Amino acid sequence: MSFAPERGFTEPHLNDELRSELEQAARQSRSDILHMTTVAGSGHPGGSMSMLEIYLTLYRLAKVDPTNPYRDDRDRIIVSNGHASPGAYAALAAVGFFDIEPCLHGFRQAGSPFEGHVERSVPGIEWDTGNLGQGLSVGVGKALYGRLSGQSFHTWVLMGDGEQQKGQIVESRHTAVKYNLHRLTVFIDLNRRQISGTIDDVMAHAIGDEWQSSGWQVETIDGHDLNALYEACHRAVANTDAPMCYLLDTVMGKGVSFMEHKHQYHGAALNDEQLGDALVELGGLPNRTTELRAKRKLGPPSKFSTSHAPFPRLNPGSATSYDVTAKLDNRSAWGNALLSVAETNVKPDGPAFAVFDCDLAGSVKTAEFAKKYPEHFFQCGVAEHSTAVTAGALSAESALAIWADFGMFGVAEVYNQQRLNDINHSNLKLFCTHTGVNVGEDGKTHQSIDFFALLNSTFGWRVITPADPNQTDRIVRYVLTHPGNYAVMMGRAKIPMIAAEDGSAYFGDGYTYRYGRMEFVRPRGEVALVSAGNMAPYAQSAWEQMGEHRDHVALVVISDWSDVHAEDIHRLGTFRHLVTLEDHNVKTGLGMHLTAVLQDHQFATPVTRLGVKEYASSGTPDDLYRLLGLDPDSVARRLTEICATIEVPA
Amino acid sequence: MSFAPERGFTEPHLNDELRSELEQAARQSRSDILHMTTVAGSGHPGGSMSMLEIYLTLYRLAKVDPTNPYRDDRDRIIVSNGHASPGAYAALAAVGFFDIEPCLHGFRQAGSPFEGHVERSVPGIEWDTGNLGQGLSVGVGKALYGRLSGQSFHTWVLMGDGEQQKGQIVESRHTAVKYNLHRLTVFIDLNRRQISGTIDDVMAHAIGDEWQSSGWQVETIDGHDLNALYEACHRAVANTDAPMCYLLDTVMGKGVSFMEHKHQYHGAALNDEQLGDALVELGGLPNRTTELRAKRKLGPPSKFSTSHAPFPRLNPGSATSYDVTAKLDNRSAWGNALLSVAETNVKPDGPAFAVFDCDLAGSVKTAEFAKKYPEHFFQCGVAEHSTAVTAGALSAESALAIWADFGMFGVAEVYNQQRLNDINHSNLKLFCTHTGVNVGEDGKTHQSIDFFALLNSTFGWRVITPADPNQTDRIVRYVLTHPGNYAVMMGRAKIPMIAAEDGSAYFGDGYTYRYGRMEFVRPRGEVALVSAGNMAPYAQSAWEQMGEHRDHVALVVISDWSDVHAEDIHRLGTFRHLVTLEDHNVKTGLGMHLTAVLQDHQFATPVTRLGVKEYASSGTPDDLYRLLGLDPDSVARRLTEICATIEVPA
Repeated sequence: MSFAPERGFTEPHLNDELRSELEQAARQSRSDILHMTTVAGSGHPGGSMSMLEIYLTLYRLAKVDPTNPYRDDRDRIIVSNGHASPGAYAALAAVGFFDIEPCLHGFRQAGSPFEGHVERSVPGIEWDTGNLGQGLSVGVGKALYGRLSGQSFHTWVLMGDGEQQKGQIVESRHTAVKYNLHRLTVFIDLNRRQISGTIDDVMAHAIGDEWQSSGWQVETIDGHDLNALYEACHRAVANTDAPMCYLLDTVMGKGVSFMEHKHQYHGAALNDEQLGDALVELGGLPNRTTELRAKRKLGPPSKFSTSHAPFPRLNPGSATSYDVTAKLDNRSAWGNALLSVAETNVKPDGPAFAVFDCDLAGSVKTAEFAKKYPEHFFQCGVAEHSTAVTAGALSAESALAIWADFGMFGVAEVYNQQRLNDINHSNLKLFCTHTGVNVGEDGKTHQSIDFFALLNSTFGWRVITPADPNQTDRIVRYVLTHPGNYAVMMGRAKIPMIAAEDGSAYFGDGYTYRYGRMEFVRPRGEVALVSAGNMAPYAQSAWEQMGEHRDHVALVVISDWSDVHAEDIHRLGTFRHLVTLEDHNVKTGLGMHLTAVLQDHQFATPVTRLGVKEYASSGTPDDLYRLLGLDPDSVARRLTEICATIEVPA
Repeated sequence: MSFAPERGFTEPHLNDELRSELEQAARQSRSDILHMTTVAGSGHPGGSMSMLEIYLTLYRLAKVDPTNPYRDDRDRIIVSNGHASPGAYAALAAVGFFDIEPCLHGFRQAGSPFEGHVERSVPGIEWDTGNLGQGLSVGVGKALYGRLSGQSFHTWVLMGDGEQQKGQIVESRHTAVKYNLHRLTVFIDLNRRQISGTIDDVMAHAIGDEWQSSGWQVETIDGHDLNALYEACHRAVANTDAPMCYLLDTVMGKGVSFMEHKHQYHGAALNDEQLGDALVELGGLPNRTTELRAKRKLGPPSKFSTSHAPFPRLNPGSATSYDVTAKLDNRSAWGNALLSVAETNVKPDGPAFAVFDCDLAGSVKTAEFAKKYPEHFFQCGVAEHSTAVTAGALSAESALAIWADFGMFGVAEVYNQQRLNDINHSNLKLFCTHTGVNVGEDGKTHQSIDFFALLNSTFGWRVITPADPNQTDRIVRYVLTHPGNYAVMMGRAKIPMIAAEDGSAYFGDGYTYRYGRMEFVRPRGEVALVSAGNMAPYAQSAWEQMGEHRDHVALVVISDWSDVHAEDIHRLGTFRHLVTLEDHNVKTGLGMHLTAVLQDHQFATPVTRLGVKEYASSGTPDDLYRLLGLDPDSVARRLTEICATIEVPA
């Protein structure tokens, strides 16, 4: 199935017929932009009107298909300054992606697909944006998808000039140049206005020079000249030397004299009288506000049925079991499992498969993968913000996108980027090592003790902390073969295996990982020691040294913090006292969460929560846990005290 | 009190005597760097040795005073690549800030002040770093402090070359140029190596060109040539045209042949044999590992007593009361209170006073302040990461630093920066507007519904949500006059005042804000409706429309989420059922927190938690709350059902 013949910018110039069609569409779209914002009583008409010609040029003439907006070989068009949604919606409708009518009355209405910032729920929109500075990182992810899937589609990124102040953009500029993503082209809407005034007043900087200094080809063109825009796209498609950036010389509020060059129209709608004046200027187009307001009262328009890329089918391979006497770090088990999964899935006709790194491959155990599969490994340097988004954008295609980093950098440093991935229904596989106080000597700036509080504040991310290398192996295979955003959080140190009562490896050969279930490793007792992740081996040690009291203490391991199964909660609720042990801020971690969930299930079981109560210093994990009262001795002592209090038989 | 006469780079050249002193110190310091890392068994010797000459030059000859490291007129020396701590510690000790001995055996030991990344707990260190890309933003904050406090000290920022990949840096480059911070100078340790290899392999980019394109004066000099370094400092002090950036041509591992140019020594210590070889190369300095290891076993060295800048004394001014019938947005009350506090405190001999903005002054209500006090207002553009750190760094001086932004940008987008501020004991005053679903039409990317989960995952930030404009006024005055990091989270919409039982404004004239206390606005009933922030006026409406059941429902307002007073918890615990109502993710918000805290106080009171259960769409707050079941009708209905269940007398 090929795209319409006029698409793809193959001709050197725009023909007269198409130009006239686009000019006609521009006039109508300007009216649409003003109607939807005035009827909604808010929105961003100024930039929508300065970007209109590039919107129309791309949506009408790039390789996209209004009748089949989700085909995999389409060009990707990313709107980075998502507030310019009225322009994007108007242009998409003008070229046939959908009917404009529901947008005119349902823009920014609760329950409508036409939200204030562009959303993927609208056909033709590739990514929900709104927080600035994200679009280029998304574009890099889409361009990498093209390369990995052997396709030649082009990725077009539309950005604002105000957003050029966001640092994340320079990170993505570097990545695009390093990987020579020449099928990636950027247009910057240089209308020289942002919310508070001119960009020169707010924060003057030489946008073109900065892009050039990062190795991009930069040209300035008239952003309202349809011929110039078409020819720029033609040159961009032909160019294979470097990614290109066009600065579009545009006018905020273009087409309505009293709006032009006024930053006040960045984010303010016209009132009815102004709209009337504007429509006269636009050639006497009809004023439809009364009719549209009546329609708005009937409720929001219905949502589109979308058909985004499916998560690829992958083979989890065969589990690797480590001997119960082995001592290994979870991160090495993760690195081994990655290699095993790669072996069965990285192949010429296999799914797009990518591992991202931010200058830590050796520590996060992706270095072997990098050596074996250099075409599938992306070293992005110390650039976590852009990497989070690029990996997320790739993962929303039919691709497996993996990012491994320290916990601090994969979650805390880029929390909002992970949240935006989640909003975009990405399928990112995040593997974090060096989490918790377990990071050791690197000290407090590197202590990832907040990952659950953060990711649990989204609605899609699932947090998993493997208990030992055996469970790590099973979890990695599960996560890599299931859709959704998963964060697997591991420590740094070598740890012993969790043992079953018969002395074998608990998570060894007979074990099957069931997402969301707790493991009752030692099921009997009046008191339960509930541990997770880094603390599971310490809990096991504490239990072992409890002597006679051991029979009264059950050992429960939770790996899946985000989803606790009701059956397991009920089982937990039958204990007389729970002690939770976690390498996480105790104020916002697993213990707090469980306490509240137990209460929801009508259990008033007392919970003693042990966890991180302050920023710890540099030191070995064992020393630090001792200072924090989380070492096996302290935990065993605490358990013994509790056993004594509740008068369990000695 | 003046600085030692040789300090300040006033001479054009370094004299022979000082050069010889520094050369001597360099030799000893290299031995110290290697000893401390080998004894610790970890650390970062490579960059420490490439940066040693600039460390020594600055600590010995900049205007700092080893005998009085906290004097307010000192030059600020910021180490941005905090992993190069062995070099910084060795140099500081060499010039007299402290004795090197405890550092040699106590480096990276749990409980020691000499942590793996530089920490403010060591005299001479201005800022805890470790997460890269932060130092220039800190330097901008310090330079602004110099300007605001009328001092002429210089700020020197030392950075790595690998960290130049972090986008945050370009944001601060812009700010420094905009405000012509010519008393700010940067040195980049261009040893061309980072963890994974050469910077050209990891992420090639033209560092000097990029700085120049942002408007900085850039020069490359030999980073091991003491004469060249001194003269560079002299030129930097003399220059008033633009901030300067020196690229230091250096050698990783400088001084030990087998370490030189090897990226493997970025983060790895020598073993004993290698240390022996290195010491021979350094001129036969003694190998002290055996002795130092014995000392290490005796426990960590003691901490320094530090004396950081005190929070300035400010006058809160007189409260403004809004009539109970008024309808106002909390953000306007905040803007008014800010102007009132500024009026009494911004004066020639007053404390340094600064308000930061990221292109949202009109919306976050700091535009009037900007107009009235342009010298105290810093428009940083769309650059939240750098602004968070710059404002934080200023706030750690004797200064009042205020940052106002949307909740999404002030917390979620910059969570890690706020966490780093907290680690640095800053006193940042963060005023966020447009929090919660209350942000309305801007939609899900702008919904700050995670602020408590995030900030409560630090150990210092305090989260406050004012209930109405009257309480906002009191809270603003409190926060601006108390030390510590406070986040005041406000909605966008105009809201009615909270009324007392007698019909007067509850938070009006008779009210005194007491941090940490709940307000029992309607104290009687079997069921308590506990609301906070944006939801308080909705809770009041729900209560009002409950008709006959009203007498059974108490109305409690919580403004201070981070600290709930035990007395109030006990009072809450006496109700038969609690309903919490919050404009926050219900999984990680106030309701979860209260449920767990109640349990800690042995209360098994059932808690029905109402809050945000999904990413909401664009729309008016009222429409969105209705869709989420948080509108007064839904809440009143829910309360009525609960009243029926617990069979309160009708």
